[in-house]
Amino acid sequence: PLPMACIILEVIIIILFGTLVQYDDETDAKLWHKEIANGSSNYDNDFYYRYPSFQDVHVMIFIGFGFLMTFLQRYGFSSVGFNFLIAAFALQWATLMQGFFHGMHGGKIHVGIESMINADFCTGSVLISFGAVLGKTSPVQLLVMSVIEVTLFAVNEFIVLTVLGAKDAGGSMTIHTFGAYFGLMVARVLYRPNLDKSKHKNCSVYHSDLFAMIGTIYLWMFWPSFNSAVTAHGDDQHRTAMNTYYSLAACTLATYGLSAVVAHDGKLDMVHIQNAALAGGVAVGTAGEMMLTPFGSMIVGFLAGTISVLGFKFLSPILEQKLKIQDTCGVHNLHGMPGVLGAIVGAVTAALATKEVYGDGMADVFPDIQSGDVEASFQGIRQAISLAVTLGIALLGGLITGM
Amino acid sequence: PLPMACIILEVIIIILFGTLVQYDDETDAKLWHKEIANGSSNYDNDFYYRYPSFQDVHVMIFIGFGFLMTFLQRYGFSSVGFNFLIAAFALQWATLMQGFFHGMHGGKIHVGIESMINADFCTGSVLISFGAVLGKTSPVQLLVMSVIEVTLFAVNEFIVLTVLGAKDAGGSMTIHTFGAYFGLMVARVLYRPNLDKSKHKNCSVYHSDLFAMIGTIYLWMFWPSFNSAVTAHGDDQHRTAMNTYYSLAACTLATYGLSAVVAHDGKLDMVHIQNAALAGGVAVGTAGEMMLTPFGSMIVGFLAGTISVLGFKFLSPILEQKLKIQDTCGVHNLHGMPGVLGAIVGAVTAALATKEVYGDGMADVFPDIQSGDVEASFQGIRQAISLAVTLGIALLGGLITGM
Amino acid sequence: PLPMACIILEVIIIILFGTLVQYDDETDAKLWHKEIANGSSNYDNDFYYRYPSFQDVHVMIFIGFGFLMTFLQRYGFSSVGFNFLIAAFALQWATLMQGFFHGMHGGKIHVGIESMINADFCTGSVLISFGAVLGKTSPVQLLVMSVIEVTLFAVNEFIVLTVLGAKDAGGSMTIHTFGAYFGLMVARVLYRPNLDKSKHKNCSVYHSDLFAMIGTIYLWMFWPSFNSAVTAHGDDQHRTAMNTYYSLAACTLATYGLSAVVAHDGKLDMVHIQNAALAGGVAVGTAGEMMLTPFGSMIVGFLAGTISVLGFKFLSPILEQKLKIQDTCGVHNLHGMPGVLGAIVGAVTAALATKEVYGDGMADVFPDIQSGDVEASFQGIRQAISLAVTLGIALLGGLITGM
Repeated sequence: PLPMACIILEVIIIILFGTLVQYDDETDAKLWHKEIANGSSNYDNDFYYRYPSFQDVHVMIFIGFGFLMTFLQRYGFSSVGFNFLIAAFALQWATLMQGFFHGMHGGKIHVGIESMINADFCTGSVLISFGAVLGKTSPVQLLVMSVIEVTLFAVNEFIVLTVLGAKDAGGSMTIHTFGAYFGLMVARVLYRPNLDKSKHKNCSVYHSDLFAMIGTIYLWMFWPSFNSAVTAHGDDQHRTAMNTYYSLAACTLATYGLSAVVAHDGKLDMVHIQNAALAGGVAVGTAGEMMLTPFGSMIVGFLAGTISVLGFKFLSPILEQKLKIQDTCGVHNLHGMPGVLGAIVGAVTAALATKEVYGDGMADVFPDIQSGDVEASFQGIRQAISLAVTLGIALLGGLITGM
Repeated sequence: PLPMACIILEVIIIILFGTLVQYDDETDAKLWHKEIANGSSNYDNDFYYRYPSFQDVHVMIFIGFGFLMTFLQRYGFSSVGFNFLIAAFALQWATLMQGFFHGMHGGKIHVGIESMINADFCTGSVLISFGAVLGKTSPVQLLVMSVIEVTLFAVNEFIVLTVLGAKDAGGSMTIHTFGAYFGLMVARVLYRPNLDKSKHKNCSVYHSDLFAMIGTIYLWMFWPSFNSAVTAHGDDQHRTAMNTYYSLAACTLATYGLSAVVAHDGKLDMVHIQNAALAGGVAVGTAGEMMLTPFGSMIVGFLAGTISVLGFKFLSPILEQKLKIQDTCGVHNLHGMPGVLGAIVGAVTAALATKEVYGDGMADVFPDIQSGDVEASFQGIRQAISLAVTLGIALLGGLITGM
Repeated sequence: PLPMACIILEVIIIILFGTLVQYDDETDAKLWHKEIANGSSNYDNDFYYRYPSFQDVHVMIFIGFGFLMTFLQRYGFSSVGFNFLIAAFALQWATLMQGFFHGMHGGKIHVGIESMINADFCTGSVLISFGAVLGKTSPVQLLVMSVIEVTLFAVNEFIVLTVLGAKDAGGSMTIHTFGAYFGLMVARVLYRPNLDKSKHKNCSVYHSDLFAMIGTIYLWMFWPSFNSAVTAHGDDQHRTAMNTYYSLAACTLATYGLSAVVAHDGKLDMVHIQNAALAGGVAVGTAGEMMLTPFGSMIVGFLAGTISVLGFKFLSPILEQKLKIQDTCGVHNLHGMPGVLGAIVGAVTAALATKEVYGDGMADVFPDIQSGDVEASFQGIRQAISLAVTLGIALLGGLITGM
C-alpha cells in the first residue's frame, strides 16, 4: 500500500501543480524584469533576505528533528526514513493548501521563497505531532495523518493570521501549539495500555545518547533563523533573531539549574537538557518580532526552561497515568506549554505596544494599530483569541484524525 | 611517495599562484574603491549574493560526499581522510586550470567568490569519479587521477560554456555527467574480477546505515544552493533554487514508491533512498535556471527518481557482469543517467524558449537568443552537442587516465 | 552547587541586562525607521551582511568545538554537555563585558548583530582554553574560570583594538593566542603528575575516530566566515574569506605531507590531520583582511601546518615533561603557535601597507594610516605590541585563575 500511496499522491500533486501553481513576480523572468523596468522594484529580490534563513530552517526540519528524534528513540529507519518521506510529501502538499487558503491570484497559487519557508514551517508542525505518536502508527497511517494535518494547519493559519489579524511569525501558536496538541490528541485516541512494556521504548531510556545532544544543538543554533525567517525586512528580522538568541541562552541556564534541582541525586537529566533548553525558542515565536527587549526575552526564556523541566518531571507522568496520553518524545513540554506561554507573551506584548516605543516601525509589526484600525489592547485580544482557536482546531482535528 | 607528492604539488601550486593569480575587482581594496568612486558599482558586492550558497556547496562537497561515501563503504580513513586531502588539492588546482581556460586578464587569473564556487564544483566532480573507483586505487593514484581530471574538467567546461555557448549552471553535464562517466571508464580499466570477494565490500551491504542517510539529507537540503550558486542575480537564482526544491521533493516520493515496487518483499532498499532521492537535483542542473515551472521540475524529478531506482535494480548488475564496470557507489544511477536526463531536459527547454515567456529576463538566461545571434532551436542544438562533447571527453579521458 | 550557580548567575545577568542593555539603532523599531526617514540609512541593515557569517560562527563554536573535543577525548557529557552550558553562559556574560569595555552610549550597552558575533568569538576563546584543561577540573571550576576569562578577554580586546588601535578581525591574537596561553597556564597550575595514568586519557589515543574528523571538517569549512564575520563591508569581507580559504587549502597539503614525514612508519597521524589542518585558518586571523594576496595566504598556511605538525611531534612532549604543562588537546599546536604566527604575519603585512596597493580601501583596513595619524611601520609596531600585551594578560590571567 505504501508504494501505491506514494506514487498516486505524487501524481495528484503534480497534476494540481500543473493546473494551479505559477512563479510569483520575483521568480518569474518576465514579471521580475517588468517590475525593474517600471521602477517598482530596485533589484531588491526577497530571495536574498530570506534564503539564508530558509536553508537554516530546512536544516532544522530535516536534520534537527530527524537526528533528535531518531537517536532519542532508536526507531532507526522508521524515524529518519519516514520523516524524510513524510517531510518531502508535506512540503508539496503544504504549498498547495497554504496557497489555496492564503489567497490565490487570478485562480493561481503564486510561489516564491516565502511560500517555501511557510511550507517548511508546516512540515515542522507535522514532525512535532509525530513526536507524540511515534511507535504507535504504521507508515501509511502517518501519511494519511499528514494529509489531514497539513490541511487543518493551513485552515488554522488562515483564520489566525488573515481573519483574526494576529501576528505569529515564529509560530508559537500556529506551528508549536498546533502541532503539539494535534499530536497529543491523536496519541490519546491511539492509547495502548501495554505500550510501555512493549519493544517501543520511551525516550528517557536513552538519556546518555550524545547524538540527541547534537540534534538539540542544531535546533538551538538555528532557532534565531526560524523565528526571523518571515518577519519584515530590516530591524524586524534583526530584532527577532536577537531576541531568540538571548531567550535560548537564558533558557539553557535555567534548564541546567532546574534539572539538577528536581533530580533525586542532583545529577542532570539529559532528556531535560535535550528538550527544555529549546523551549526558549518556542516561547518567543510570537513576541520575538515585537519590542520585547533582550531583558524581556531572557525572562521569557528562563520561564520557558523552568516550565519545560517541571513538565517533564511532574506533568508527563500525570498525563500518561490519568489522561492516558503517552507523549513519546515529550512534545507537550517542548512545544505544547512553551507554545502556549509564547502565545500569552505575544498577546501581552501586543497589548502594551505604543507609538512612543515603535515609532514608524509600528507599520511593520502591527499594521492595523499603525493605520488606526485597532487599539493595541484589541490586538492583544485578537492574539488571545487566536490561541483559543488554535487549541480548538488542534484538539478537535487530532481527535477526528486519531479515529 | 605520498608526503613527497603533497609537498611538491603544494610548492608548485604556490609558485603558480605567486606568478599568475591576483584578486579580482571586487576583492581588491584599490580596484573596488575605484569602481565605487567611478560610480560603476553601487556597493553591490557579488560576495553577498553568492557567499551563503558557496558555504552550502562547501558543506555538500566536504560533508555530504564525505559522510555519504564513508559510511556507505566503511572505508573509513581512505574515504574521509583522502577525500579531504584530494578535495583540498583539487580546489587549488581547479582555480588555476579554470582560470587559465576561462580567460586570463593581462596575463593574470582573477579570483573572487565565483572562482571559489567553480573550484568547489570541479572538486565535486572529482569526488563523484572517486565513487566509481573507491577501493580499487592507492592514494597516490587518486592524486594523479585528480590532477588529470581537474585539467580535463576545465577543458570540457571551456568548450561547453564558452566555445559552444551552452548553459549549465547546476552542472548536469559539466559536473555530474562528466564526473560519472570519467570515473566509470577508469573503473572499467581497473576491473578486477575478484573484487567482489575481496575485503572491499560493495555499498549495498551496509544498507541500514543511518549515517549514509544523514549524508543524503545534507546533499538533499543544500542542492537548491548548488544549482543556483552561479546563476544570474534576482529572479534567476530565486527560480533555480525553487525548481530544484520541487524536483527533489517529487523525486523523493517517486523513489520511495518505486523502491518498494521493484523489491521482492515490498521492503524499501536504503541504497535506493540514499541515492535515487537525490537524482532530482542532478536532473534540473541544466534547466533549473530556465522557465521550467514547478510543474515541469516535478515531472523531471519524478522521472529522475524512477530511472535511478530502475538503474540500481536492473542496470548495475548488467554493467558489472557484461561490461565489467564495477560501479562501487552506483554513480551511474545517481550522477550518470540523471545527468544525461538533465542535459536532454535542458536542451528541450532551451529549444522551447520564447520572448513571450522570458520577457527581458531572456538576457540573463539566454543572452545569445536575446541579442538575436541564435534562434531558440539552435540553442537547444548547442545544448545537445555539449552533452555529446562532455560524454566524449569524459569517456576518452577516463580511458587514458585509467591506463 | 552547580544548579545554584546556574540560577544565581542567570538572575544576575537578567538584572544587568534589564538595567544596562538596549537595542542598537538597527535593531530598534523606532530608531531604524527614524534613520530611514532622515535619509541617514538606505535600508542597508548590517544584519544582512553579517547574519550568514554569524550562523557559520555559531556552528563552529557549538558543533565544531563540541564535536571535535568530545570525540577526541570521549569525555562524553562532560565535554558536549558542559561546553553547551558554559557557552550559553559565556555569550551572555561576554555581551555585558564587551559592551562595558567597548564603550557605552548614554549609560547603555547597545546590542546588534556585531555584538552577537563578538560574544560568540569570546565564547570560542573560552572553549579553546577548555581544550587545555579538560579532564582536570569540575564543572563549577569551569564556570568560575569562564567568568574570569570572559572578563579578561574583554579587557585585552579593549586594549588591543581600542587603546593600541591594532587590527585583528579574525582574532589570531585576541581569540586564539589569548585562549590558548590562558588555558595552558591554568593547566600548568593544575598539573597532576599522575594524570597520564589515570582514567583521563589523552587525545592521541583515539586517533582513528572518524567523528573528530567531521568536527575538523566543520571548522575547516566555516573558517572563512569566522575570519570575515566582522571585517568591513565589500572588498574586505570578500578578501578575508578568500585568503582564509586558500590558507586552509595549502595548510592541509602541508599537514598531510609533514605528518607522514615525521612518522616512524610513514603513516599519517589522525591527530595531526584533525588539528594541524586548521592552523592555516588561525594564522590568517589578523592579516586576512589585509592585501595578503592568495599567494601570501598559501605561504602562511603552509608554514602554519608545518609548525603545528612539528609542535605535536616534538614540542608537546617537551612541554609535558619539562614544563609540566599537560596540553590535553594540543591547543598550543592548533591555537597557540599558529596564533602567534598570525600576529607576526599581521604586523609585517601592516608595516608593508602602501597607498599604492590599498588605494582608498586603506580607510577600511587601516583608518589611522589613511588619516595620516600613523605611518604603516608604526601600525606594524602597534600590532607587535598587541601580541605582547595579549600574551602577558593571558599568561598572568591564567596563572591567577588557576590558583
